[in-house]
Amino acid sequence: MSQAPSKVGILIFPGFEPLDVFGPVEAFHTISKKLAKINLVWIGPTLDPVGSAPKDIHTTTMGSTVDTRVVPTHTYDNPPEDLEVLLIPGGLGPRVPSSDGAVAFVKKTYPKLKYLITVCNGSEIAARAGVLDGKKATTNKFGWKESVATGPKVEWVRTARYVADGNVWTTGGVSAGIDGILAWMAHVYGREVARQVANEMEYEWRDDETWDPFAYIFGEYA
Amino acid sequence: MSQAPSKVGILIFPGFEPLDVFGPVEAFHTISKKLAKINLVWIGPTLDPVGSAPKDIHTTTMGSTVDTRVVPTHTYDNPPEDLEVLLIPGGLGPRVPSSDGAVAFVKKTYPKLKYLITVCNGSEIAARAGVLDGKKATTNKFGWKESVATGPKVEWVRTARYVADGNVWTTGGVSAGIDGILAWMAHVYGREVARQVANEMEYEWRDDETWDPFAYIFGEYA
Repeated sequence: MSQAPSKVGILIFPGFEPLDVFGPVEAFHTISKKLAKINLVWIGPTLDPVGSAPKDIHTTTMGSTVDTRVVPTHTYDNPPEDLEVLLIPGGLGPRVPSSDGAVAFVKKTYPKLKYLITVCNGSEIAARAGVLDGKKATTNKFGWKESVATGPKVEWVRTARYVADGNVWTTGGVSAGIDGILAWMAHVYGREVARQVANEMEYEWRDDETWDPFAYIFGEYA
Repeated sequence: MSQAPSKVGILIFPGFEPLDVFGPVEAFHTISKKLAKINLVWIGPTLDPVGSAPKDIHTTTMGSTVDTRVVPTHTYDNPPEDLEVLLIPGGLGPRVPSSDGAVAFVKKTYPKLKYLITVCNGSEIAARAGVLDGKKATTNKFGWKESVATGPKVEWVRTARYVADGNVWTTGGVSAGIDGILAWMAHVYGREVARQVANEMEYEWRDDETWDPFAYIFGEYA
């Protein structure tokens, strides 16, 4: 257990998808209490609060106003030196130019990491940084075509709840991040620990990377 | 649809559980784009960022440091006057004295609401405010005994992913909030809308209030 990573960073940028972040964060919260040492940090463009859905990129036809503002603990320019795990969420953010800073951060940081984890189209940030090239990976099924277009040298796996290739874990869309992080926790901290985390979260863990009804549901549209 | 509620408040307090909040918030994000008008607000003790796990109440035996800081848009003293829906998350926060302000806010606000929704032991806030008295309700199964003790006049339902009684919806622990909010959306906006939200979230919706393996898993311990 002394080798198990504890320093975990959540990459945030304007337009992050809430559950991409907070599914895995809930699992880190739960495991951190009595099962593993976790030091969680939040890495944003600056130390100012970062919104999940800034008005300039949140497309709604309904007159909705929906935003979540989260406060970073670190910046892309000054991350913790001992970062071991980086989690990249998706959302609308990866598809606008303001995400260039996040891409540059991932490119610079990946060689120092023990693990990189992407949720949903957080894969686009990783693909644009080149760190998925030549690797097997998956992404969300709802916006599959747009996501895989960002990584022409990636070996994309269409029907997969999550994919592990070396130290890179990628998951399907949004909720798939929860199954992915639990599988990663099983790999790193042991299956019994991951099961306990899932149960405390009262989460029906799909402990099977090939389980993916959404590949079929969105088969014609993605 | 003109009668459907759009003004939704998330009640936050120090020690809120992340997924209790962000499972439902993700559903509100998703439905807000093209399916329903949603104006989401965040109601905290003050306008300062609110932490999910402040050090004074986060019990860890592992040396962990895990926190999420979210920025409120409104305060208990100055909520939006036209609030229609209030969501109350759980966590360690409801079990410490600093949650008294949240309880008083719920007591004061409930009569003006169209719907009250609790996730996990957010039920404790509602029970302490007296708004569950005489109603059927559920809560998390992991900490069942401690939660139901806060509401001796509540008709607790042990095996339930979620329970609706009048305009009050209560859900099981943590992840159950997602099934609960989807069922509530089916009730309010229609089943096809709720299904579309679940699919875009790539979430395996358990559209059955009696589905609750966690009532059995934690049967001996809770």
